[in-house]
Amino acid sequence: MLLLNENDLRSVLNYKNVLEALESGFVGYKRKGKFPLRINIESEENNSNVLFMPSSFLDYSGVKIVSLCENNPSIGLPYTRGIFVLTSLKDGKPLCVMDGTYLTYLRTATTSLLASKYLSNKNPNSLGIIGTGKIGTMSIEAHLSYYEIDIIYAFDKLEKSLDTFIQKFGEDNSIQIISCKDGNQVVSNSDIVITATTSTFPVFNSRSVNEGTHINGIGAYRKNMQEIPEGLIIRSKIFVDTLEGAISEPGDIVIPLENGLVSKEDITEISDVILKGFSRKESDITFFKSVGFSLEDIVTAELAYREATKNGIGFEVDM
Amino acid sequence: MLLLNENDLRSVLNYKNVLEALESGFVGYKRKGKFPLRINIESEENNSNVLFMPSSFLDYSGVKIVSLCENNPSIGLPYTRGIFVLTSLKDGKPLCVMDGTYLTYLRTATTSLLASKYLSNKNPNSLGIIGTGKIGTMSIEAHLSYYEIDIIYAFDKLEKSLDTFIQKFGEDNSIQIISCKDGNQVVSNSDIVITATTSTFPVFNSRSVNEGTHINGIGAYRKNMQEIPEGLIIRSKIFVDTLEGAISEPGDIVIPLENGLVSKEDITEISDVILKGFSRKESDITFFKSVGFSLEDIVTAELAYREATKNGIGFEVDM
Repeated sequence: MLLLNENDLRSVLNYKNVLEALESGFVGYKRKGKFPLRINIESEENNSNVLFMPSSFLDYSGVKIVSLCENNPSIGLPYTRGIFVLTSLKDGKPLCVMDGTYLTYLRTATTSLLASKYLSNKNPNSLGIIGTGKIGTMSIEAHLSYYEIDIIYAFDKLEKSLDTFIQKFGEDNSIQIISCKDGNQVVSNSDIVITATTSTFPVFNSRSVNEGTHINGIGAYRKNMQEIPEGLIIRSKIFVDTLEGAISEPGDIVIPLENGLVSKEDITEISDVILKGFSRKESDITFFKSVGFSLEDIVTAELAYREATKNGIGFEVDM
Repeated sequence: MLLLNENDLRSVLNYKNVLEALESGFVGYKRKGKFPLRINIESEENNSNVLFMPSSFLDYSGVKIVSLCENNPSIGLPYTRGIFVLTSLKDGKPLCVMDGTYLTYLRTATTSLLASKYLSNKNPNSLGIIGTGKIGTMSIEAHLSYYEIDIIYAFDKLEKSLDTFIQKFGEDNSIQIISCKDGNQVVSNSDIVITATTSTFPVFNSRSVNEGTHINGIGAYRKNMQEIPEGLIIRSKIFVDTLEGAISEPGDIVIPLENGLVSKEDITEISDVILKGFSRKESDITFFKSVGFSLEDIVTAELAYREATKNGIGFEVDM
């Protein structure tokens, strides 16, 4: 059995090969894999949850095991940790245990790039980011790996997080980084916007968003979180990774649905766009809500396993 | 994260400490843990399945990942393989990945001993085994670790398997091993009988079973398998590890239920016996059907992890 830690994953995965894996994964995944509902085990005493997300794709089966501990941040431990276990469906061998936290960050960041690739106007030259934590930062990195970007507009309510972000990308002299005073300044200047917060209220005003903007909402994953104004939901063409997840989990979709502002029929799965295309008008505002989908994990995990095996990366143990 | 392979598990687990862990596990498990229904992912193309069995107990959560590959035996690979992943519910850390195959054998063998301890007549001196494969053999070992046994009656339709069994236990001069010509010879001579086959028809006749016998049925785990004659089911007091599993999976319970020979009310969970006791009449025939229960896995896995950590066993990796 092969073990792949974060460093191993970094050495075999990049935004380019993950983008390709996700792209081919979303094509025909309903024929090629199985994606049962995840199981959540809660520990009331420990104020924690463990989620089990099994899936299969082609000749592999996998499960991501993710823990969420409310008490952790206050004692200096990460809120969420995880591993992914890959098993062969050909001969049943447990193939690989890999870091599930980095896997999740990487596939989420790259899924936002996938959405931008299929939904945004061509040749964007400005990016916007609201929420400059790890996942927001990686999503910007993913976009920079694919687009020629001149300018990034960034905002985070935590000054320290924003400073770290500006320092990181400021090292690249070909890109100008604008530290913004709020989310409105970000969205009003950016061709592609990424929101990556856990906010329970909108992080910008709908009227600040110009026609032609594409927005990736990759934060606000719970029902009580809502980072996108409902006014923008009404103005947008809406896309999601899975309809099943989108209508049951994130406030940005669930609340407008409950309020009758949109209906399920207004929401398109990204796989349909990849398969059938989407004819965008220049003036369209497009909104992609990333909910997280076990398909994204297993195709990324398969890629990591194949590449690591091919290149002798990771640590092989006898199990 | 700690890795424990079969050898590591052998060095920290034994029938005695697993018996104690199971015993305390079955007491109050409904308050102390969660045992969601398992998820099965089937691969029609590969003729294989992967089962995901999540659970929690006290401050631990775990999942057993077990593959079943129909094509494997014909190419010299094991039909089933598995691993168990243990996570802390206190701080969410992935604690341990361990061999799930040996874990399953050991907890199943020891659960049969647990059943015998609570259900059989006192001071048995003869054991019977029908089906001398790995799990049957370990179940006999478990009983020998606890009882003073003079004689073992053994039968397997595969001569080679029976020979291996007789050779193994024949080394101990204090025990007589009788190679039997069929299952009837086994059951008619044994105080405690273990059946561990995948037979689709009864492996002995009910009339061969003497009053006072205790039988552990630990094979025949599928609906189409039935190793115990229905005539014996009628004569027996029936016990199971979980009612939920027993009435939906193994033919030995499901088929008599469907035929109206017994009802759910005739079946007692072993946890109730441990908690409230069971006043056996000398002449009672008792039958324990082992279905397999994720509680048995997680308490054994917790024990293995704690003992390994305490004794510096296993291989620690940075994940």
